Amino acid sequence: MAGNTFGKLFTLSTFGESHGEALGGIIDGCPAGLQIDLDFIQSELDRRRPGQSHIVTQRKESDTVEFLSGIFEEKTMGTPIGFVIRNENQKSKDYEHIVDVYRPSHADYTYEAKYGMRDYRGGGRSSARETVCRVVAGAIAKLILKQHGISINAYTSQVGDIKLLKDYHDLDLSKIDSNVVRCPDALIADTMIQKIEQVRKAGDTIGGVISCVIKGTPVGLGEPVFDKLHADIGKAMLSINAVKGFEYGSGFEGAKMNGSKHNDLFLPLSEGEGQGVRCKTNHSGGIQGGISNGEDIYFRVAFKPVATIMQKQNTVNSKDEVVEMTGKGRHDPCVLPRAVPIVEAMAALVLVDHILRHRSSKL
Amino acid sequence: MAGNTFGKLFTLSTFGESHGEALGGIIDGCPAGLQIDLDFIQSELDRRRPGQSHIVTQRKESDTVEFLSGIFEEKTMGTPIGFVIRNENQKSKDYEHIVDVYRPSHADYTYEAKYGMRDYRGGGRSSARETVCRVVAGAIAKLILKQHGISINAYTSQVGDIKLLKDYHDLDLSKIDSNVVRCPDALIADTMIQKIEQVRKAGDTIGGVISCVIKGTPVGLGEPVFDKLHADIGKAMLSINAVKGFEYGSGFEGAKMNGSKHNDLFLPLSEGEGQGVRCKTNHSGGIQGGISNGEDIYFRVAFKPVATIMQKQNTVNSKDEVVEMTGKGRHDPCVLPRAVPIVEAMAALVLVDHILRHRSSKL
Amino acid sequence: MAGNTFGKLFTLSTFGESHGEALGGIIDGCPAGLQIDLDFIQSELDRRRPGQSHIVTQRKESDTVEFLSGIFEEKTMGTPIGFVIRNENQKSKDYEHIVDVYRPSHADYTYEAKYGMRDYRGGGRSSARETVCRVVAGAIAKLILKQHGISINAYTSQVGDIKLLKDYHDLDLSKIDSNVVRCPDALIADTMIQKIEQVRKAGDTIGGVISCVIKGTPVGLGEPVFDKLHADIGKAMLSINAVKGFEYGSGFEGAKMNGSKHNDLFLPLSEGEGQGVRCKTNHSGGIQGGISNGEDIYFRVAFKPVATIMQKQNTVNSKDEVVEMTGKGRHDPCVLPRAVPIVEAMAALVLVDHILRHRSSKL
Amino acid sequence: MAGNTFGKLFTLSTFGESHGEALGGIIDGCPAGLQIDLDFIQSELDRRRPGQSHIVTQRKESDTVEFLSGIFEEKTMGTPIGFVIRNENQKSKDYEHIVDVYRPSHADYTYEAKYGMRDYRGGGRSSARETVCRVVAGAIAKLILKQHGISINAYTSQVGDIKLLKDYHDLDLSKIDSNVVRCPDALIADTMIQKIEQVRKAGDTIGGVISCVIKGTPVGLGEPVFDKLHADIGKAMLSINAVKGFEYGSGFEGAKMNGSKHNDLFLPLSEGEGQGVRCKTNHSGGIQGGISNGEDIYFRVAFKPVATIMQKQNTVNSKDEVVEMTGKGRHDPCVLPRAVPIVEAMAALVLVDHILRHRSSKL
Repeated sequence: MAGNTFGKLFTLSTFGESHGEALGGIIDGCPAGLQIDLDFIQSELDRRRPGQSHIVTQRKESDTVEFLSGIFEEKTMGTPIGFVIRNENQKSKDYEHIVDVYRPSHADYTYEAKYGMRDYRGGGRSSARETVCRVVAGAIAKLILKQHGISINAYTSQVGDIKLLKDYHDLDLSKIDSNVVRCPDALIADTMIQKIEQVRKAGDTIGGVISCVIKGTPVGLGEPVFDKLHADIGKAMLSINAVKGFEYGSGFEGAKMNGSKHNDLFLPLSEGEGQGVRCKTNHSGGIQGGISNGEDIYFRVAFKPVATIMQKQNTVNSKDEVVEMTGKGRHDPCVLPRAVPIVEAMAALVLVDHILRHRSSKL
Repeated sequence: MAGNTFGKLFTLSTFGESHGEALGGIIDGCPAGLQIDLDFIQSELDRRRPGQSHIVTQRKESDTVEFLSGIFEEKTMGTPIGFVIRNENQKSKDYEHIVDVYRPSHADYTYEAKYGMRDYRGGGRSSARETVCRVVAGAIAKLILKQHGISINAYTSQVGDIKLLKDYHDLDLSKIDSNVVRCPDALIADTMIQKIEQVRKAGDTIGGVISCVIKGTPVGLGEPVFDKLHADIGKAMLSINAVKGFEYGSGFEGAKMNGSKHNDLFLPLSEGEGQGVRCKTNHSGGIQGGISNGEDIYFRVAFKPVATIMQKQNTVNSKDEVVEMTGKGRHDPCVLPRAVPIVEAMAALVLVDHILRHRSSKL
Repeated sequence: MAGNTFGKLFTLSTFGESHGEALGGIIDGCPAGLQIDLDFIQSELDRRRPGQSHIVTQRKESDTVEFLSGIFEEKTMGTPIGFVIRNENQKSKDYEHIVDVYRPSHADYTYEAKYGMRDYRGGGRSSARETVCRVVAGAIAKLILKQHGISINAYTSQVGDIKLLKDYHDLDLSKIDSNVVRCPDALIADTMIQKIEQVRKAGDTIGGVISCVIKGTPVGLGEPVFDKLHADIGKAMLSINAVKGFEYGSGFEGAKMNGSKHNDLFLPLSEGEGQGVRCKTNHSGGIQGGISNGEDIYFRVAFKPVATIMQKQNTVNSKDEVVEMTGKGRHDPCVLPRAVPIVEAMAALVLVDHILRHRSSKL
Repeated sequence: MAGNTFGKLFTLSTFGESHGEALGGIIDGCPAGLQIDLDFIQSELDRRRPGQSHIVTQRKESDTVEFLSGIFEEKTMGTPIGFVIRNENQKSKDYEHIVDVYRPSHADYTYEAKYGMRDYRGGGRSSARETVCRVVAGAIAKLILKQHGISINAYTSQVGDIKLLKDYHDLDLSKIDSNVVRCPDALIADTMIQKIEQVRKAGDTIGGVISCVIKGTPVGLGEPVFDKLHADIGKAMLSINAVKGFEYGSGFEGAKMNGSKHNDLFLPLSEGEGQGVRCKTNHSGGIQGGISNGEDIYFRVAFKPVATIMQKQNTVNSKDEVVEMTGKGRHDPCVLPRAVPIVEAMAALVLVDHILRHRSSKL
């Protein structure tokens, strides 16, 4: 209820502050019998890890997850999976200059107003460091999805005004991790990387867009009315730090269209493809009436630029005085590269949750 | 859990099919002591009602709400508020031609796949008629917000490619209901109305965008991490029929910006304005770290064109046969005008829910 | 959250005051495809109905349920089932003498303290009339349980100090409804009926105990730790008006026993009984570690005497003045006969909820 | 949803198996600003700790809690409080003889049936070791209750057939911890201790009853209908390992009474006692209509004897073979002494949850 739990049947609850002892969480409702691949989980964490390349923060964290329960002889037991990730490289001193200063476009002021206090070290609970727990749970969710033949691929499709204009059908999604910005088009990737380097040198930051494609979803996932599949995916994305927008299928472009053009005409399946239908086009983005229709689900997520910049800014402190401040510490000039696995993780949590919820739809 | 309840502390659960006996719901968690203004509630329903103008569906429904509980001597009692809205003008015959046909871009196919059956009459549960219940609950939520000095104003800001480019600061929001398309700029409104008329004559439909501004929100609403205020608003909007996208504050435009430009610098309040801070700019859209900061909250919602068109379309029936169909009945050429009160209602539900949730933040 | 919803996946939300327009509710999460037997549902309501015999309240209510949604062509659709039961025989005048008086051992005082107001007519929301909605939902739950071969039989096993001492194995449970007090032993039933008549003539009321047996439960229902099957059954029972105690299996008697005697030794199944084990004894009451083990589940529920008596009592009014009052209206001298179907209904809700929850236990 | 979370606004989620790496949990929804007294928390853990006296299990566990988040400069921050308790003294070898054997009246069989597997070491998740997390959260809840002037005192009131017959008013509750069995009457305590010693020497175990008194509760806690205060307390108690029954106020004795005797007559407060009423008697047990009325809340909880005995028992293994087994390891002959702090902890969780929930009752 205090907003630290995600999901209904397959749930992730997280805890932890940026510069506290540890972050961690509980994955509850994970069905029994899942083979746990620890290497895969760590590899997902490594995709989010600070210090992984020259265009992300140089903070040093091994981000090693320790599982404390719920797994026995490498399999899930149906009991809650508790885990912790120790904080290793906290430099709380980096934050002493902001003990009573509200950093612009950060959560310092709102947290203090809400709770009457705050942990000023690295943003405390408001830090994106919390997302490390999402990646752990998302990795386990992906292991479940793999068994259902469902794949999730997110990639950086925009950095600032540099846009990857190609449709995902025209991209080789296996190339996403072949460059540090996680854009499957090598040329655009290069330009993005240069852009980020240039921004970083200027002590500035920059926003962007992550696109995501989910393939292999069975028909029927999603609960109509309030818990439509895309509403839950949308909330999942909007809960990620720095996200300002979400669209799926035709999205904001669809608002310009006529129904006669936007409608996805049904076609019968070809022989050998089994029962059901497919769609001639996919403006629906794989979801109709809030329920998956078996086509690819695809969506886009807008990220604002990181608020911490290495330039002087005027702001206000808790005594209502105007003060000047400059960012310290090791920060990302652009969150996109590290946010790709977070987007995938959150999408995976939603899908597994709805796979379980769907089990109650029929007698 | 089956997706028919919205909210955590202030909750709305709805039931009802488009052509069943009645729709209705339960508003639970409404604090005791609220004076209920039935005229206001009905006036909100009238803003959503079919047949209200020539550019919306001509279906006749009085949409009169009957409250069955929870109100005594015109005040809420703290007990659940049950209500029903009888269906009056169902013409189930309009749907006999689609008993076993999957209408393109409708939920016919996905419902049947999910549940093994469906109510083919008017889309059954997947019909936007369900939103009538949201407007009832939203009206009660607005009565609560009024006491907190919070106002919510949504308006049509785009129909097809006709866009209202002015910022909301430059609009007179009191003019929203002065025209049938609910756009506060009279000139743009006229163009939008003409566009909708033209589309309707062609037997087609068209999408658009609704913008919404919330003023007077206190600092502190929103639960960090998963239930960020904008994540809950986003989910609320994405749960409305035909919505394809949501952005708040700088939104997708923010993705193009640098941090040095995007950051909202804090300023001290002037004398007499009380304690706290304000922001020089508002790219944050009134929410920082998922928590309201006291500035205006503003967001945009993209709607796809209505799927039912009065043109021939090919589709598939439940026997996997290709069939030709043409829409029958009385449908909206554009949902935007009637969706404006729905957007406001859903925003109101989120805010009241978070006002109550916020009561637990401090000892 | 305000306490008007029961269950997690198969949920019942209720609304309605004793003397308001109507009571009703929403059954959500009912799987699609269930054949609805309206006669059965009404027959369950008739077992709870006032005026059914000379030993219960003579208030006249037909207690006819109207279903408004969720059922199409006599089958559930997977969408929420909305229903209402109109109040017909409210005599609000019977309550004018207590507008500002706190009836002893009623909820008048606590409701007024909690909400700052109350509906004084017939107890408002605190009236046991609310349980009519539980019986509607319980009847639908029983229809589901029937398909799983699960039966639930409750019966009056104690009225005042008249106890049915026989174990349920020695009773013919098909005889429960053969007398008005719903005790399967004819002789004890007669004594109980006489006791209730005698109490009623004295203007007094009397408590008692209801026993309940559930047969045919599969192994595996119940979620360990907090949502143990018996914990959810216990909460269900304790939520019924006038209930003061709950015990299952060996119950309070078990507290006296040694482990060597209390332990239920496992035996292998005989040939042809399939796989699994059975228990030599059943002190566990069919639940071990919070999970059903396939043996009969049995429990006992203690009811206090009805608070409204036809005798003079001193009490206090809202002005803190001592006043004398005498009960008016038509009340039950003993709730047990009418509570039997309520106990069964609540048990049915818990079981169906856990059948659905169990579907997520394995991959 | 998988049953590992307790509470609605103030919630405890736990994880951990008896012989896994660690147990732990997340306390979410704890309001900001609470001063954390670590010594008090540890002292509560010590009351539950194994090895604390000669009549409990001699297993060695320091049961030291490590807080990982949510507390900053000794105060709660409003963010989730994560904590772990490392397992130190697991002797998994003690359980090798039962790898495929279903111990009588344990959860071995039901877990295996539910999940298709189980952690055989010490009962895994079904072990009462899980309750250590409840005591951590309960201690924090008690710190909140202290600020509201609410005290909770549980004590052993029955061991086998040795009963403490005195009413709690006639006991000195400050003496509860003055003996190892936690019975405030020294004489009865001695007899109980002797009984437990005698049972232990026989390789047997014994059940009992814990009574609990809550003083200082404000009027108004509890949500009517399904979440009645006593229903939530009852569920809390029934969720504790080995509990078979719960009664509050007059309980099962109340079932024998007439209304004229059972009713608690209201009296006006004396001058200087403030506004409100009090009750002449307290058969209601401090709760009317599910809502606290300001009188003492008192209840009784029945515990069955521990299932693990040091005697030979016949049982069945996973191959359906009858086998003979004898308990090994270090077990409690009677759980009552160690269960006293668990009962208090669970009661504290319920009360704090309802204090927060009550904040939404009025406008």
